[in-house]
Amino acid sequence: MAKELKELTSRSVNYSQWYQDLVIKAELAENSAVRGCMVIRPYGYAIWEKMQRVLDDMFKETGHVNAYFPLLIPKSFLSKEAQHVEGFAKECAVVTHYRLKNNPDGAGVVVDPAAKLEEELIIRPTSETIIWNTYRNWIQSYRDLPILINQWANVMRWEMRTRLFLRTAEFLWQEGHTAHATREEAIEETLKMQGVYATFAEKYMAMPVIKGVKSESERFAGAEDTYTIEAMMQDGKALQAGTSHFLGQNFGKAFDVTFIDKNGKSEYAWATSWGLSTRMIGALIMCHSDDNGLVLPPLLAPIQVVIVPIYKNEEQLAAISERVNKIVKNLKAMGISVKYDDADNKKPGWKFAEYELKGVPVRLAMGGRDLEHNTVEVMRRDKLEKETVSCVKIEEYIKELLDDIQQNIYQKAYDFRASHIISVDSYDEFKERIEDGLFILAHWDGTPETEELIKNDTKATIRCIPLEGDKAPGKCMVTGKPSAQRVLFARAY
Amino acid sequence: MAKELKELTSRSVNYSQWYQDLVIKAELAENSAVRGCMVIRPYGYAIWEKMQRVLDDMFKETGHVNAYFPLLIPKSFLSKEAQHVEGFAKECAVVTHYRLKNNPDGAGVVVDPAAKLEEELIIRPTSETIIWNTYRNWIQSYRDLPILINQWANVMRWEMRTRLFLRTAEFLWQEGHTAHATREEAIEETLKMQGVYATFAEKYMAMPVIKGVKSESERFAGAEDTYTIEAMMQDGKALQAGTSHFLGQNFGKAFDVTFIDKNGKSEYAWATSWGLSTRMIGALIMCHSDDNGLVLPPLLAPIQVVIVPIYKNEEQLAAISERVNKIVKNLKAMGISVKYDDADNKKPGWKFAEYELKGVPVRLAMGGRDLEHNTVEVMRRDKLEKETVSCVKIEEYIKELLDDIQQNIYQKAYDFRASHIISVDSYDEFKERIEDGLFILAHWDGTPETEELIKNDTKATIRCIPLEGDKAPGKCMVTGKPSAQRVLFARAY
Repeated sequence: MAKELKELTSRSVNYSQWYQDLVIKAELAENSAVRGCMVIRPYGYAIWEKMQRVLDDMFKETGHVNAYFPLLIPKSFLSKEAQHVEGFAKECAVVTHYRLKNNPDGAGVVVDPAAKLEEELIIRPTSETIIWNTYRNWIQSYRDLPILINQWANVMRWEMRTRLFLRTAEFLWQEGHTAHATREEAIEETLKMQGVYATFAEKYMAMPVIKGVKSESERFAGAEDTYTIEAMMQDGKALQAGTSHFLGQNFGKAFDVTFIDKNGKSEYAWATSWGLSTRMIGALIMCHSDDNGLVLPPLLAPIQVVIVPIYKNEEQLAAISERVNKIVKNLKAMGISVKYDDADNKKPGWKFAEYELKGVPVRLAMGGRDLEHNTVEVMRRDKLEKETVSCVKIEEYIKELLDDIQQNIYQKAYDFRASHIISVDSYDEFKERIEDGLFILAHWDGTPETEELIKNDTKATIRCIPLEGDKAPGKCMVTGKPSAQRVLFARAY
Repeated sequence: MAKELKELTSRSVNYSQWYQDLVIKAELAENSAVRGCMVIRPYGYAIWEKMQRVLDDMFKETGHVNAYFPLLIPKSFLSKEAQHVEGFAKECAVVTHYRLKNNPDGAGVVVDPAAKLEEELIIRPTSETIIWNTYRNWIQSYRDLPILINQWANVMRWEMRTRLFLRTAEFLWQEGHTAHATREEAIEETLKMQGVYATFAEKYMAMPVIKGVKSESERFAGAEDTYTIEAMMQDGKALQAGTSHFLGQNFGKAFDVTFIDKNGKSEYAWATSWGLSTRMIGALIMCHSDDNGLVLPPLLAPIQVVIVPIYKNEEQLAAISERVNKIVKNLKAMGISVKYDDADNKKPGWKFAEYELKGVPVRLAMGGRDLEHNTVEVMRRDKLEKETVSCVKIEEYIKELLDDIQQNIYQKAYDFRASHIISVDSYDEFKERIEDGLFILAHWDGTPETEELIKNDTKATIRCIPLEGDKAPGKCMVTGKPSAQRVLFARAY
């Protein structure tokens, strides 16, 4: 692939096109032959594997175990929880038959009308219903609680407008589904998992987030409360990066999941659910990357360090390789993932552009002069800065550099957000400033009507009612009615 | 759960019922509300996670990367490879609609007839078609080859008669799909992956296997050759434990995947695919377990060591816990997974039965006398043998014991198979001896007709044409026609 083929639309010209170009050109994902369903290519999937490993460890440290529930859900299950069906039963893939047969009129195969299912099955858009139907048999006594289960799975929602990673018909995610003996314990779990997501986003994705609770109209269908973490992308739009739902007794009641409590009384079980998806790969890209390509935080980068030799002849390559192989061995022993790219069918310049595009955090290059001076050229992807460094203790240097890059990427995103978040008190000012691509903290009277009006006027929605920060009451910027605290508005993905 | 609820049907009374009881009572899996689809419970899923980790590492060591392709496949794709459609298009889940709507005539939701798909979509029974349709765009030159991709995914085949793990409509698996520039390289890959499966089965599952190639009628639909590993269960039946297919250029041609070779000539790409599924959990159970419950090889056991305190009062428990906690810490540092079960609401006898049922390889019990003598009681699950051992260097002792159990389980399965495999030369003898639950090596004339006749007469099928062992030619036991070598017959799962 020639260099020019890799050039991206710049963010300032067309942010949306830049994102699309980057996902395709960095070979993260592409559209498939099935509308709205993506192919996650090996490099994109490697990022997801890193995310999975980190999250899975965090879930297990907080006492959860994994299990697997069926892909298909009987249609009638969706109707059992009144709000859930409104939210999820509409745009979904419906299995109606279980057999094809040779086409009697020609080539190919056709659906066999004799193989019609008695009850249609839905490809899970989320698994509360099938899981709570199962929990009914697992829960009799308070001694059976809590149940702390997570599932890694594919789900499907028939979205009309799709974008790679951000909104696809099929996506990969994890969904936690827990059952508890008390309301308090379930709420504690909901908040704990919001905290796990926030830690994951900030520590590993280097993406600062605002923790909050959703307004009623933005809640998960079937939840009493939805807790969210909201991140700012480089165009100032918000991206909901993980949600944790307190489901009350809604699913316990819908699926008749009761238990005998400590006092011998029958009670409905309390539920939570929480999920994070491949959408986070989209967030990762949009939060940090630049016009040269991906910028990946070292803790989630499939390749953390790449080493490129620059040589005039085979002899020189051999001398470079000898020195590089030692460095590679030492870095691997430190748990750092490193690739030595000595492929001879591509020029160093091509390789440099390629690894920049792919967001490898650190690139080393070693040439003839470096051999003489026992040095190596080090390029850090986040700042695109080069320096020549001694090979003595280079491994320690790289380790510290990776830590510094992780920290710098976070700080950069944090500073960007800090400079793009304001408080306003008048609706006129709100309407003007929302056009600048900002997060706006403003007072709201707490009604869905006012929320709807603001959305219709400005396309901005309430991202969350923040859990931290300014908690002072005030007056709604639209109606002047009392407001309990400022809430966070933004346009969103 | 009372002890008697855990009692299993004995293997000698009803092997099939024993298996079913064990899967349910050890809480590995259960049937769901959706016909043929199972719920994999946390303990069963933990075994799958262990299998996944080992296999994934082996795949990566052999140069493969993971990716993800769509769940749904356009119906027309299945028809593109003539044999593939015969094998897979028949019993499959068909998505025909993408929306539900409120029932105009009453409660619940109904399929919206206005949301009918133009072309039906099939839930993947296997992914050759959608993947090779994608590879067409990835492959232009020999430089793009080989492509060495694996996918971890769920698949669905509408089986009429299902059994937990062994045959379910939905199951979890990995499917490798590789593309190569030459026939030789593709065959090498096929054999390499058969080797990986054999190593996994023997080293980790402690399950000896026979490597071979399938006869034409048992081949994967669309393959030129199917390589298999076949294992013997305790009832003498065979279980196909992993298959690796050389697909020739069949999918390259069906999906028009061509490349320019080193000589500038356009060629169709060569393909392999290989898969191993949650069926292996069924094999693991049926190969090693006994009338007391699961027997798990230490290398795949979710819990390798459990420690149970036996105490008269809180003070004694505290003294035991102090000593046990040191052992736990040391074992964990050695990478051994250990659980200290000091729950006070269950008796030691109940716990012993529970961990026997769950197949935990090593159980330690520490009581008052052990405290005095600085000893611990050690029970090994495979032999159900107990001994009292000094706590001095107990960690080393346990490490060696786990190795010994792994080896012993393998040897036991190996010896069982060795005593249940015979060679016969007359068809009368074959018909008699197949009733004894044996693997039989016999000569066959190589025709599907003779194979079919034997199957109809005896329910035995050709499991494989072994790659190793007796290669001498002979005469078919049925027709007397020439036979290239003995082939392996058995009744199979």
